[in-house]
Amino acid sequence: MIGIVDSSIGGLTIAREAEQLLPEHSLLYLGDIARLPYDRQDPATIVKYSIENTQFLVDNGAKIIIIGCNSTASIATETIRQTFDIPVFEIIHPTVQKAVKVSHHERIGIIGTRATISSNIYSNAVKNSRPECKVFQKACPLLVPLVDEGWIAKKETKMILKKYLYGLKNQQPDTLILACTHYPMLKQLIQSRIGKKVTLIDSSIEVVKHVKRYLKNAPELLPAENFSQVKHRYVVTGLTETTEYVASQILKRPIQLQLA
Amino acid sequence: MIGIVDSSIGGLTIAREAEQLLPEHSLLYLGDIARLPYDRQDPATIVKYSIENTQFLVDNGAKIIIIGCNSTASIATETIRQTFDIPVFEIIHPTVQKAVKVSHHERIGIIGTRATISSNIYSNAVKNSRPECKVFQKACPLLVPLVDEGWIAKKETKMILKKYLYGLKNQQPDTLILACTHYPMLKQLIQSRIGKKVTLIDSSIEVVKHVKRYLKNAPELLPAENFSQVKHRYVVTGLTETTEYVASQILKRPIQLQLA
Repeated sequence: MIGIVDSSIGGLTIAREAEQLLPEHSLLYLGDIARLPYDRQDPATIVKYSIENTQFLVDNGAKIIIIGCNSTASIATETIRQTFDIPVFEIIHPTVQKAVKVSHHERIGIIGTRATISSNIYSNAVKNSRPECKVFQKACPLLVPLVDEGWIAKKETKMILKKYLYGLKNQQPDTLILACTHYPMLKQLIQSRIGKKVTLIDSSIEVVKHVKRYLKNAPELLPAENFSQVKHRYVVTGLTETTEYVASQILKRPIQLQLA
Repeated sequence: MIGIVDSSIGGLTIAREAEQLLPEHSLLYLGDIARLPYDRQDPATIVKYSIENTQFLVDNGAKIIIIGCNSTASIATETIRQTFDIPVFEIIHPTVQKAVKVSHHERIGIIGTRATISSNIYSNAVKNSRPECKVFQKACPLLVPLVDEGWIAKKETKMILKKYLYGLKNQQPDTLILACTHYPMLKQLIQSRIGKKVTLIDSSIEVVKHVKRYLKNAPELLPAENFSQVKHRYVVTGLTETTEYVASQILKRPIQLQLA
């Protein structure tokens, strides 16, 4: 069973990819919605919450952990790895590895929340991996609340996206990292706005591909013997009116969230 | 000294009114930005945070407390009153009292965050106070992030507001309660959208007027002897790039926020 720990429901985009790419593995997702948003918490609190949440996943059978939240990944990954004796994956490095690999002209754009962009965690990782890359960043703080409201295809969302991407587009990146797990929900809008020649790197897909490669060489982490044994559980610590609606939009099917 | 306890910076609209209406009193404002948003926290956590924050204000000289956050007001007012032996005011009841007083046709609209609207705290208070009133509510969850980003006069904000107020306007309220301390920043936009005949009730103004009436009959709470003794302190538990910008927009002057 693969555990996904998240601070919101954005990490459901990772669950969606895992359902597709790793269909023989059960998933246990925990969205710590009640203690949102991690990007305004102090680091010690984020570490504390992350350990508690990972403990919940391990107690309920998870054998692998995916950290599906950028704030948690950047602050708590090492502590989680030291605390739990199972494989722990995070979304930042597989994403950056893919971006530097596919970039032809070494011009990489990055969009994310204000906290992710200010932390420079993606841009530093890009420069460590390929120092000659030019990096262009843009914080897009309204996109998460827009997705959380389910305003995926609304005109207002398109206009706000246009405003956010205007300057970035002028920098002519050839690759754009979606450094927030909510943004895959806006991928088509982002692609049409930034231009179809720009390669979008979806952090949710990249981390799942990374886990898939790992599992090929980890025979001890046996998948279910048949699909009837596969069970997915989606747990959240809180619910608002729109949570299930948005969750089903992300997973592209009706979904019942369980309250932790 | 008047202490204002807030979960965000929306309550600065209360501080702005207090600076105007009670110029002879010092203010100590605490915005618990780092632990936002209270409306997704469980009640026990909100009570705990509120007691901690009020203790900070009292320790630093506050003789009166204004609870500048709807979630805190609805959940923690009684506990704060029991814990601290000083006058404690909240924004809900003065606002509702004003609304039911000025409504001519007993048709009252209420806009607020999803948490405030779902709690029915304003609508119940209206009905308790004037049972014959018809109440029309609308949650406007994107307005707070828009104000927090400083997008006060942007076209996108106008469009979103238009969408939110469309159905409400058709209900023809004669009075509209702004049941969120962020919304006074959008008062002009809201007024022009809902129609100039509708009386807007600004919770930030109403609570300060209420405190002013109280102070007239409370000689033990002496104001400063002269204005040179008046000192305002604005303290927050966290800062993002836009926090000071938005704070100065709200207070209509440059402001330095102190980190707690």
